[in-house]
Amino acid sequence: MDKNMKPSIAGLIMTPLKQIGDERGAVLHLLRSDDANFKGFGECYCSETLPGAVKAWKRHKVQTQNLAVPSGQLRLVVFDDREGSPSKGKLEVVDLGRPDNYVRVSIPPGLWYGFSTRGEVPALIVNCADQPHDPDESERLPENDPHIPYRWRDHKRGGL
Amino acid sequence: MDKNMKPSIAGLIMTPLKQIGDERGAVLHLLRSDDANFKGFGECYCSETLPGAVKAWKRHKVQTQNLAVPSGQLRLVVFDDREGSPSKGKLEVVDLGRPDNYVRVSIPPGLWYGFSTRGEVPALIVNCADQPHDPDESERLPENDPHIPYRWRDHKRGGL
Repeated sequence: MDKNMKPSIAGLIMTPLKQIGDERGAVLHLLRSDDANFKGFGECYCSETLPGAVKAWKRHKVQTQNLAVPSGQLRLVVFDDREGSPSKGKLEVVDLGRPDNYVRVSIPPGLWYGFSTRGEVPALIVNCADQPHDPDESERLPENDPHIPYRWRDHKRGGL
Repeated sequence: MDKNMKPSIAGLIMTPLKQIGDERGAVLHLLRSDDANFKGFGECYCSETLPGAVKAWKRHKVQTQNLAVPSGQLRLVVFDDREGSPSKGKLEVVDLGRPDNYVRVSIPPGLWYGFSTRGEVPALIVNCADQPHDPDESERLPENDPHIPYRWRDHKRGGL
């Protein structure tokens, strides 16, 4: 991740989130209705990714994702294939997880994204999307689709 | 928990949530804007509770909690001290966690609640409250306050 939280892809937003330490366990911010880039609430769900597993690729037509990783460590990859985008062809690779990368990633519609665990424990995404889930609203590609210039197999081998 | 998901406290709602199994890791529902008891979105945050820790007691004046436990195992205790409530004096003890107790608990304002881990790993609450956090809107009591008829120490010893 760019140290300044300025992603290379237009419209992708990364926001460092507050972790309020407590000897009994931390409180972890995720999204508020008065946040600057809050666009409405449609659905909150969690997605667990087991060690070594890859969940990729997905693209939404209208839904914006607002996700963070409160538990475990995850690699998120975003690819811009949008016609006319100033960042068309760019790939953003973001490692997410506490304590150093507890960040909300807002992924606007039209971008391909996928993720895979890092390390030996499951990773948990919490996603507050601006629309409720609609199965007709998203598209998928296989994780090894040659159209997207990222090879998950290398990640799983410990590369990239 | 009552097997029929009918809590003994008026206004407390427990809703079994869908866990969509996947060999790569499950997708776990939490809250949708078209759910029957959705009352608006104010803030989503996570609260981690470490093994053996107790986070209690808290009561909100206006905020409704909508929480579930996607990771780890947690005991949630709710106490009704509301004047004029048909369930005044009742205590609800709910064990939350996957796979058997993946449930959304909606706690209306006016009820005392607290929680503690069960087991040897941290438990994670994801809460979608209907109002953003406001420090002036909640009250606290110490975990061992004699006014509330639940002893966390017994829970930590393995009792209750």
